[in-house]
Amino acid sequence: MRVAEPPAPALLALVDAIGPVEAAAAVRTSSAPPGVLSETSARRHLELAESDLADAAHVGARLVVPEDEEWPAWPLLSLGAASDRGQRWAGTPLGLWALGSARLVDAFERAVSVVGARAATGYGEFVAGEIAHGLASAGMTVVSGAAYGIDGCAHRGALAAGGVTVAVLGCGVDVNYPAGHARLLNWIVERGLVLSEYPPGTPPARHRFLVRNRLIAALSSGTVVVEAGIRSGARNTATTAAALGKAVLAVPGPITSAASAGCHDLLRTGSAQLVGSVAEVLEAVGPVGEHLIEPPTGPVRRTDGLGGEAMRVHEALRRRTARTPARVAVESGVPIGRVRALLAEMELTGLVERCEEGWRQTPHA
Amino acid sequence: MRVAEPPAPALLALVDAIGPVEAAAAVRTSSAPPGVLSETSARRHLELAESDLADAAHVGARLVVPEDEEWPAWPLLSLGAASDRGQRWAGTPLGLWALGSARLVDAFERAVSVVGARAATGYGEFVAGEIAHGLASAGMTVVSGAAYGIDGCAHRGALAAGGVTVAVLGCGVDVNYPAGHARLLNWIVERGLVLSEYPPGTPPARHRFLVRNRLIAALSSGTVVVEAGIRSGARNTATTAAALGKAVLAVPGPITSAASAGCHDLLRTGSAQLVGSVAEVLEAVGPVGEHLIEPPTGPVRRTDGLGGEAMRVHEALRRRTARTPARVAVESGVPIGRVRALLAEMELTGLVERCEEGWRQTPHA
Repeated sequence: MRVAEPPAPALLALVDAIGPVEAAAAVRTSSAPPGVLSETSARRHLELAESDLADAAHVGARLVVPEDEEWPAWPLLSLGAASDRGQRWAGTPLGLWALGSARLVDAFERAVSVVGARAATGYGEFVAGEIAHGLASAGMTVVSGAAYGIDGCAHRGALAAGGVTVAVLGCGVDVNYPAGHARLLNWIVERGLVLSEYPPGTPPARHRFLVRNRLIAALSSGTVVVEAGIRSGARNTATTAAALGKAVLAVPGPITSAASAGCHDLLRTGSAQLVGSVAEVLEAVGPVGEHLIEPPTGPVRRTDGLGGEAMRVHEALRRRTARTPARVAVESGVPIGRVRALLAEMELTGLVERCEEGWRQTPHA
Repeated sequence: MRVAEPPAPALLALVDAIGPVEAAAAVRTSSAPPGVLSETSARRHLELAESDLADAAHVGARLVVPEDEEWPAWPLLSLGAASDRGQRWAGTPLGLWALGSARLVDAFERAVSVVGARAATGYGEFVAGEIAHGLASAGMTVVSGAAYGIDGCAHRGALAAGGVTVAVLGCGVDVNYPAGHARLLNWIVERGLVLSEYPPGTPPARHRFLVRNRLIAALSSGTVVVEAGIRSGARNTATTAAALGKAVLAVPGPITSAASAGCHDLLRTGSAQLVGSVAEVLEAVGPVGEHLIEPPTGPVRRTDGLGGEAMRVHEALRRRTARTPARVAVESGVPIGRVRALLAEMELTGLVERCEEGWRQTPHA
């Protein structure tokens, strides 16, 4: 993990083939295949295994490897499959440095990532918090990237619901980044996990966030993009999630808001499905059939059950002035015989009433 | 037009078969087929042809019939086709009462309808006005229903652009409805058209708005829904437009706004395509290939052209402190030979600079 910048496909293949101990020895002795030597040439002189473990232990972190029982093998399968299809960016991590008491395999059993812009609006921050809160309340783990803006609100929303949340970093788990989220990261550790594939002390870098995004996408069954600019890390996570066969969901916003432009572009191009509520997210990412929602309904009207002719007759009546069936027939264009029958029917259901001068609509209750 | 409440499929079929003059005589003498007699029984004693024409002339309106040169036969074809497929709601109008100087056939050559909620928000009203203004500026006729809220803002936006706008009513063209839009309707008459298939004096009714909606959908090449509740007339127009094979477009909004719930439901169920700008509407409804838009782009970064390794090397440098190629190799994980080559390349393009102690990023201009 220390000698190559992930993802390092040649090194991964060597570890797959001969195991990590033999692979490490082959790198140290420069007896690995040329691809591996190229991936490791800049760092293979570094002997930091002991100090990395010590640095991790110093902040309370552990190294989780595929041999461990808590290794989230199932969610990470999507990376291996994409990698097998030739997508070189999709290598599985060699291990994960973890801070926090949750077991990885448990945390990712039911997980949704909620990601978005750092330059979020009040609307986006509110929505991210609400959705994360709702997902956590429904027992889902909320995965995000600990950045300012949407990410931070997603973590906070999940924590506020007493749920589990996981921050996947683009730097070492001992690096306080972003600095303003030091307390938030501590809260996340208490109730969830802070994870990274980068060894302790690795500084953040833009390319590491992009590489990190594949883990956010892989470790959840769907990604919700709350606000995203046209070019943004959140869109990159969405694209990655789609490539891994995960659900990609986007929250719309005002078209006057640049912070929603990336979400709208994902929706316009059919790259994401629109979600407007926690229930819609759960329906899209939850186990099949578990979270089916009722289609949204509007206000119910008293006249809802009426057929076309009955509706026309009802509308030809007034609330105060009574009208004769003959007048109603002319106004509605419904034959007089049908008008009489329909008025009698609607009298039974209380929609219309008879009076001396004729018929009128009954007042609303 | 006076003796049956539209759409009256049996009467339409009779007019198609034997012509309007003979059909009128058959209705008057009760010698028409039973379906026609049923559709006309409530009103066929009315003899108002002369007074309807006089009432229309009194307010400056004319009756346009399929035999007239200005009849918009081409856009109305979609109704006839749907009707032939058995969709009984889709009858073509027997004629259209028209107020305004524009010729119908010209007004509907390039037309888009912009519809939405009466209970619109400030956001929706702003967006409706902007989109209508942009469409009118691009030479499109803006069709809507003259209601409060989105409809009114659509008409006003088109008028403000000096464009043509058409209001299709669910009552007679001489009925001031809604009353608060009397002046708006006058402006529309001056620069466009106020249309109705209902004879002068016909009062508005909810079922007439639904029937009217098929004309709004048919007379435009696409319908833009700006804000709509879960149950709304605008959704009905959208559904109708889809059934007629027209483009259905919806503008998203905040998921916290009930006024956008209908739009979001149309988008979520794939019943409408998301639009966020006039250009996107034009691309969807304009003549094929005429309004292709550039995909939206974000801000351009100096490092945009860099490949993966070059990006890693660039990120391993700092702006102030210089670093040696060896240090850069370790930080980036890129082999030292490649680091030297990439630094030299990036020096040529001005991204990095050499100094006494090593290399650093050049400051932004």
